[in-house]
Amino acid sequence: MGTETEASGGAFAPSQATLDGRNADIYFARSQEILAAEGLSPTVTMETFARRRGLLCGMREVEELLRRALPAGSEAWRLPEGSWFEPREVVLRIRGPYRSFGLYETALLGMLAHGSGWATAAAACVAAAADVPVISFGARHVHPDVSAQLEYAAVVGGCAGCATPAGAALADIEAAGTVPHALVLCLGDTVRALQAFDRHVDPRQRRIALVDTFRDEAEESLRVADALGDRLWGVRLDTPSERGGVTCDLVREVRARLDLAGHKAVRILVSGGFTPARIAEFRAVGAPVDGFGVGSAISAAPPIDFTADIKEVDGRPTAKRGRLPGIRPNPRLQPLDL
Amino acid sequence: MGTETEASGGAFAPSQATLDGRNADIYFARSQEILAAEGLSPTVTMETFARRRGLLCGMREVEELLRRALPAGSEAWRLPEGSWFEPREVVLRIRGPYRSFGLYETALLGMLAHGSGWATAAAACVAAAADVPVISFGARHVHPDVSAQLEYAAVVGGCAGCATPAGAALADIEAAGTVPHALVLCLGDTVRALQAFDRHVDPRQRRIALVDTFRDEAEESLRVADALGDRLWGVRLDTPSERGGVTCDLVREVRARLDLAGHKAVRILVSGGFTPARIAEFRAVGAPVDGFGVGSAISAAPPIDFTADIKEVDGRPTAKRGRLPGIRPNPRLQPLDL
Amino acid sequence: MGTETEASGGAFAPSQATLDGRNADIYFARSQEILAAEGLSPTVTMETFARRRGLLCGMREVEELLRRALPAGSEAWRLPEGSWFEPREVVLRIRGPYRSFGLYETALLGMLAHGSGWATAAAACVAAAADVPVISFGARHVHPDVSAQLEYAAVVGGCAGCATPAGAALADIEAAGTVPHALVLCLGDTVRALQAFDRHVDPRQRRIALVDTFRDEAEESLRVADALGDRLWGVRLDTPSERGGVTCDLVREVRARLDLAGHKAVRILVSGGFTPARIAEFRAVGAPVDGFGVGSAISAAPPIDFTADIKEVDGRPTAKRGRLPGIRPNPRLQPLDL
Amino acid sequence: MGTETEASGGAFAPSQATLDGRNADIYFARSQEILAAEGLSPTVTMETFARRRGLLCGMREVEELLRRALPAGSEAWRLPEGSWFEPREVVLRIRGPYRSFGLYETALLGMLAHGSGWATAAAACVAAAADVPVISFGARHVHPDVSAQLEYAAVVGGCAGCATPAGAALADIEAAGTVPHALVLCLGDTVRALQAFDRHVDPRQRRIALVDTFRDEAEESLRVADALGDRLWGVRLDTPSERGGVTCDLVREVRARLDLAGHKAVRILVSGGFTPARIAEFRAVGAPVDGFGVGSAISAAPPIDFTADIKEVDGRPTAKRGRLPGIRPNPRLQPLDL
Amino acid sequence: MGTETEASGGAFAPSQATLDGRNADIYFARSQEILAAEGLSPTVTMETFARRRGLLCGMREVEELLRRALPAGSEAWRLPEGSWFEPREVVLRIRGPYRSFGLYETALLGMLAHGSGWATAAAACVAAAADVPVISFGARHVHPDVSAQLEYAAVVGGCAGCATPAGAALADIEAAGTVPHALVLCLGDTVRALQAFDRHVDPRQRRIALVDTFRDEAEESLRVADALGDRLWGVRLDTPSERGGVTCDLVREVRARLDLAGHKAVRILVSGGFTPARIAEFRAVGAPVDGFGVGSAISAAPPIDFTADIKEVDGRPTAKRGRLPGIRPNPRLQPLDL
Amino acid sequence: MGTETEASGGAFAPSQATLDGRNADIYFARSQEILAAEGLSPTVTMETFARRRGLLCGMREVEELLRRALPAGSEAWRLPEGSWFEPREVVLRIRGPYRSFGLYETALLGMLAHGSGWATAAAACVAAAADVPVISFGARHVHPDVSAQLEYAAVVGGCAGCATPAGAALADIEAAGTVPHALVLCLGDTVRALQAFDRHVDPRQRRIALVDTFRDEAEESLRVADALGDRLWGVRLDTPSERGGVTCDLVREVRARLDLAGHKAVRILVSGGFTPARIAEFRAVGAPVDGFGVGSAISAAPPIDFTADIKEVDGRPTAKRGRLPGIRPNPRLQPLDL
Repeated sequence: MGTETEASGGAFAPSQATLDGRNADIYFARSQEILAAEGLSPTVTMETFARRRGLLCGMREVEELLRRALPAGSEAWRLPEGSWFEPREVVLRIRGPYRSFGLYETALLGMLAHGSGWATAAAACVAAAADVPVISFGARHVHPDVSAQLEYAAVVGGCAGCATPAGAALADIEAAGTVPHALVLCLGDTVRALQAFDRHVDPRQRRIALVDTFRDEAEESLRVADALGDRLWGVRLDTPSERGGVTCDLVREVRARLDLAGHKAVRILVSGGFTPARIAEFRAVGAPVDGFGVGSAISAAPPIDFTADIKEVDGRPTAKRGRLPGIRPNPRLQPLDL
Repeated sequence: MGTETEASGGAFAPSQATLDGRNADIYFARSQEILAAEGLSPTVTMETFARRRGLLCGMREVEELLRRALPAGSEAWRLPEGSWFEPREVVLRIRGPYRSFGLYETALLGMLAHGSGWATAAAACVAAAADVPVISFGARHVHPDVSAQLEYAAVVGGCAGCATPAGAALADIEAAGTVPHALVLCLGDTVRALQAFDRHVDPRQRRIALVDTFRDEAEESLRVADALGDRLWGVRLDTPSERGGVTCDLVREVRARLDLAGHKAVRILVSGGFTPARIAEFRAVGAPVDGFGVGSAISAAPPIDFTADIKEVDGRPTAKRGRLPGIRPNPRLQPLDL
Repeated sequence: MGTETEASGGAFAPSQATLDGRNADIYFARSQEILAAEGLSPTVTMETFARRRGLLCGMREVEELLRRALPAGSEAWRLPEGSWFEPREVVLRIRGPYRSFGLYETALLGMLAHGSGWATAAAACVAAAADVPVISFGARHVHPDVSAQLEYAAVVGGCAGCATPAGAALADIEAAGTVPHALVLCLGDTVRALQAFDRHVDPRQRRIALVDTFRDEAEESLRVADALGDRLWGVRLDTPSERGGVTCDLVREVRARLDLAGHKAVRILVSGGFTPARIAEFRAVGAPVDGFGVGSAISAAPPIDFTADIKEVDGRPTAKRGRLPGIRPNPRLQPLDL
Repeated sequence: MGTETEASGGAFAPSQATLDGRNADIYFARSQEILAAEGLSPTVTMETFARRRGLLCGMREVEELLRRALPAGSEAWRLPEGSWFEPREVVLRIRGPYRSFGLYETALLGMLAHGSGWATAAAACVAAAADVPVISFGARHVHPDVSAQLEYAAVVGGCAGCATPAGAALADIEAAGTVPHALVLCLGDTVRALQAFDRHVDPRQRRIALVDTFRDEAEESLRVADALGDRLWGVRLDTPSERGGVTCDLVREVRARLDLAGHKAVRILVSGGFTPARIAEFRAVGAPVDGFGVGSAISAAPPIDFTADIKEVDGRPTAKRGRLPGIRPNPRLQPLDL
Repeated sequence: MGTETEASGGAFAPSQATLDGRNADIYFARSQEILAAEGLSPTVTMETFARRRGLLCGMREVEELLRRALPAGSEAWRLPEGSWFEPREVVLRIRGPYRSFGLYETALLGMLAHGSGWATAAAACVAAAADVPVISFGARHVHPDVSAQLEYAAVVGGCAGCATPAGAALADIEAAGTVPHALVLCLGDTVRALQAFDRHVDPRQRRIALVDTFRDEAEESLRVADALGDRLWGVRLDTPSERGGVTCDLVREVRARLDLAGHKAVRILVSGGFTPARIAEFRAVGAPVDGFGVGSAISAAPPIDFTADIKEVDGRPTAKRGRLPGIRPNPRLQPLDL
Repeated sequence: MGTETEASGGAFAPSQATLDGRNADIYFARSQEILAAEGLSPTVTMETFARRRGLLCGMREVEELLRRALPAGSEAWRLPEGSWFEPREVVLRIRGPYRSFGLYETALLGMLAHGSGWATAAAACVAAAADVPVISFGARHVHPDVSAQLEYAAVVGGCAGCATPAGAALADIEAAGTVPHALVLCLGDTVRALQAFDRHVDPRQRRIALVDTFRDEAEESLRVADALGDRLWGVRLDTPSERGGVTCDLVREVRARLDLAGHKAVRILVSGGFTPARIAEFRAVGAPVDGFGVGSAISAAPPIDFTADIKEVDGRPTAKRGRLPGIRPNPRLQPLDL
């Protein structure tokens, strides 16, 4: 989401390369040339759907793209960003001169595919967590040029927070974070790292200690709670798999030892390999978790494959083999203000 | 990969948002502030590795990022782009002032994760296809801002071609394509669409007919071969799942009917849901395929999760709990020319 | 079911080879000789049952056999043809001189085994199809000397039709059929074949077009519907596995394209590898099928193994090891009028 | 296999109902009428194949049928009875006036399907039994009008014997048998039954005692061996499932107890639910079995589905969709002497 | 359970080796020495729990051990023998000078582990058998020095009887038995063995015949029932696996043949490989069983691993890593009268 | 293993309760009475075998029992303690007056069953561990009256050590141990506990620190190694499941951190849920383990069920149904010196 795109009209505006068609499958560009050379300009109706259920995300970018592409007299309808869609349900219908928007099929399918894949996966985590907040921590698994879109999609899917400023800006929230292992290692001690954080960071930011870097989590939690007192908002357990990962019993024990030492207000966040199934397991046994940090369960979700089909040409129903000719009515579609 | 990045130094240069740290997890920015406020500037050694085997891709972008970030006196070593790496093998080691590069951990991990995930998946398809070329058709499943990186990674993984001009530019090849279903539907007949293509497109481009839009594939193949004669380079079978998808028997029959009609030179490309297993099955039974088009098997591959660990601080071996302190020697690493 | 058997007393009369004992296990013939040589003629009660649930078929042939075999004073009880029987439920009890009927154990068990196996399998298809008719097309999988019995059993199991005149005669219905691929191939075109059928076959026979021989099913359906107009009763989809077989989506699309062209009255029959599970799947998703043609799911059903046990000898309860001595009461049994 | 067929030319001659076409799918009869009415008499080449590997049986009946159907000038080639055929290998090719043989497609496919299904299953049992003979005991599971064909097929598959006179005649061997449970029950004692057999049955027939009717098999074996002395050829164990069926240990123990009592020459046959897997298990542990009686593993084998395809019409290659046009060469085919 | 222990205070008193600490893990003895040498005598609270649900057995022995070990002023609470306990539920809490009881941790855990493992397994058999009694026959699978404890545990688990005098004494019941195969073999005939039993054994003992030694069970049951008349209480079926084991059908047939011969009062006991699943299967099909003899399903049950944790030292809550510090309240605990 | 038994003839002598027959199934006692009352004293040959492969243990106790039971003129043969036996291989043959030893069938089978079950399980652990020693730590899972036999069996199975003095005495080795969690908790600190151990325990005993009680294992290992210096023989990792258990990575990291700090001579022992599979996994990845402590994998092994069969009575071969009459030769048997 480069600076030029923001300049040209808001956070969801397409990049120049997309507008130029450089990101389009080349046969779409050639089709434009052929139609022009033949002197043809058919008006077509194109419908877009997926084959599995999901949570729609990426539509705001698609809307910005269509606003730039479609000439006056064109029409479009779509489900709003954040809608659940059913298998084969039409989520987008465009009616206009094929030569005005045919080039953007690759881009608009890609926006919906990546965004809806991430948002749907995030929603599964959020559903499993019930009333406990979920934070998206997966920016490090995707290319930085789409990490903001990933985090935005996670928020569309129900996440309460995300970690990068660019992602947070897109989602219109504040970025969230604790301290990285790197800072603790640089300072050589967890308590020292948190004390430095406490000295220098805006007091409105929460003090959250990462407590698995050097010592046992329970021991470290007590040390940092004693050191920061009421200013400690919470601790984060990110125990590596080599130490067994974060378990329900570990959370319970840290909670018990904090409580026994009088630190009942200190919250416990967990991270490291959490999936909907594992979140649900923690919930089912009543592990006293105050927040789940989720990475790969969202960032590695496969894109949801969307298909765009031409269903009318110059007003006549048509379809390729395997599809039903003519539009597929969907009363949930809303007209797009172009 | 917007225009501004290309202006600032080549196709693999980082975007401005990455350089600004807007795409970084916010706790890295805060760590920089804290270290600065404490007056500390530790020299650290950071190592990066993955937990599973894969084909390294994204390193050229990482190199460009490090060249911009690291001050004189810093050092870096890495495996070259396109290397196979083993589980836990160090693929990148950076030694320098933590404050110069700590902010870029999110971005460099993301470049490697996404790129290596795609390249590794592509390599599996290419291995299955043996001497038959594989073309990457997956741009439509990913956000347009990373579709070029996807296609580049597919070529690093051994693909012979890709579909978008931006991706092809990154990979230093020509984009490849046939005709889309949309053009056939606009023109109302496969033969008519191919004849238009033949009239208007540069004769150096291959004439490849998509033959499943309106009629049976075998029937359509014969019609278009009769119409274009020697100028037809090949046909592409992309039979929808509603018609059973592309099967080995279908390829054999189209081949037999083309041969019987004297069109032995016409090639047969296939696409639609091909995975390494299905490619291998086609190869095992000797289906006469001249090219495989692959989409989701590459584009939906999960990123490969990379980890960055600090292993030395000011010359002393260290490590967080769960890791071995000190650098992990790897004779395959090559120094990076900064 | 040869001519001599029909001459000797109706469609269900046993063949001469069966009456002669040539089809009997030879040890039954030897047992008769031994009892005769010993001057013994025990009166025995024999009961017949199967070990699994099923639909009884073959009993009408058994009745004809017993009428010819049992002397005055004998008695027999049985469940009527077409009854469901439970595991180990007695379906037939014979009380009479062992020397009069012992020889026929092989034949009567075989009649029940083959007939009940087929009828039970047919009933499973019919149950899955609910209110959509099922036609038996499996004569080609069994020896012609029992194909009539197979088709009769299919009708006992609830099928609405069958394909051979001999089978139809046994079941007291009319044989049903469309046109074979062979006729279409001989005439070189589907429309031409149907027009010839239409010219020469009794107008009371339904015109049903097989539409997968030369072109895509949807294309061919429209061509033949346009050619025959109101006289076309329906089309049959028998798509080969090499083209993906018949799918729910194919049926839906053919229906939609026929309707769009104004051929709403044309029915759609399907055939090719249908099993109860696949029929149920078509029904569950609401595929607009007007008839299922079933072959192997009925014709390849394993026979149901029946056992005949002697339970009384000269009025005394007995049984071989593993069985309970004495008759096993079954109030559902009805006396046979000998 | 009724008397009229034997009168008209040998054991493998078709029945009158088959020759009349009453056993044919009715659409074949209609196709004949249509071609006649149109004044057409195409010469066609039809090929027959199956989709899985098997042992060919039923071809001798097919040959007799073709000899009666094909006019002078026709040609046919086939694999000989008892050949193994591969998936899709052509086993029969007919070239002649379609109107002379089209009616018999149902019958000839059925002969091959039922016969090859049984023969292939028998061959699997025989292979598992290695040098121990296998006897077919399955006549009671099939309709008596095809029990002779079943037993003939079992012998084609390698069985050393079968149980009915009609089946044995077709296979050109003697029928084999022991005594039925029924005789033992009628006489009230195993020894008494065997003594009666011994008194009255031709001494050239083997004396084989069924030893599980009233008492423990080991006890009964010793009683009957003591009673008949050298005249006892063997015992048969047919233990019911209620008594655990026949086990390897039971065979070993009966062998040991017979040997200990000096009856080393008495053989042991086993029956009851034997499949290739169970036969192999008995062989693997060295159970001292001298013969396996097999029923359902052969008689319940599913028919092997054969397909007949027209591949040439009046000399031109053709084929329905899904098949390769033109004949499929097979050097193993042998011309049939018509 | 040697004589010296009985002398020193009842059937549940610990052996001398246990009291001496010879059966204790040696590091407990060393810990005692170290604390003594350091002049320390901490008062500790130790809690004991298991990780899975079970039926508590062995606690009466633990109580006797603690009565001998704990000095005045100590306290203990426990669930009573025969209680069901939940995963992690505290079943025993001891508070006293560590030096008085630390040495006995090995012994008391072992008593509970072995006893509760057996009792829990027995309870599963008893639950499956519902109102049919279960007898423990497993003494032969365990060392004779603990066979009495095994049988006692089986009775705690709900068994109606056991086989050894020592076990019966501990459980305060009479030992139960039939006749062994050995006696039948020594006397050479089942009837002869039972007649000898009948002549010489106290008439108050039940006459139960083992009926699978020499002949078929049904035959032998009738012989012995005829021979002993009203004095025969029941028969026991212990059919070896070589003869198929005891099956539901066998029980039904023996019942039917006994009833047919007028022996309706003779009971049927079964044994040989019975597990809860197999008992449940016999019950589900209504097999007429009057008693189940169970061996390995109880004797081979794995011990239930118990853990003893120190939770307070000199009044302060503590715990090792992984456990919650301080006592874990359990209102079901009852004080032990020391 | 009470004092009275040791007094009466060595560690393997039977207890008085065993000699009295109180631990015998009561029907053996009754059989003795019946034979006596009948005036019978048959000489019998009894053979003992198991149905699965195993490592023989318990035979030394059986030998002592037989020496006390058998009168002059009797004979016995057996495989020696510690032999591997095959399924159904005879491991013990006794020939003598049945009345002298019949009573001990329960006891001798139990000795072999329990001992061989444990020894076989231990051998599987030892095989997996290859050249790394295995120590038996399972006394706490079994009743204290058989814990010595368990530990002896573990040593027969190849274990290098065991934990109780009684078990060690039986196996003729020294008991081994570290410090219990209890001592560390009593002293409040791992280093303090080890220093106390070091002060007071015989210097010939190895100093082995348990390092998971209060802090992270790596941290604690370094603390105790620094405190004890060369006197520290090793550390034991017994990480609870709540902390992820002991992992290969944990062992590697502790090794690396000890080495880095110059403590290369300190050994690492592991315990907690080790099975043969998990031991093999540690070995396969080269985890630097110096000893495995095994509990439940040995102590919870099911007993191996042994069967005793009478095979001769007064010189005549016999056997119950299901067994081969007469002795089963085994050249591996060795005569027992009675």
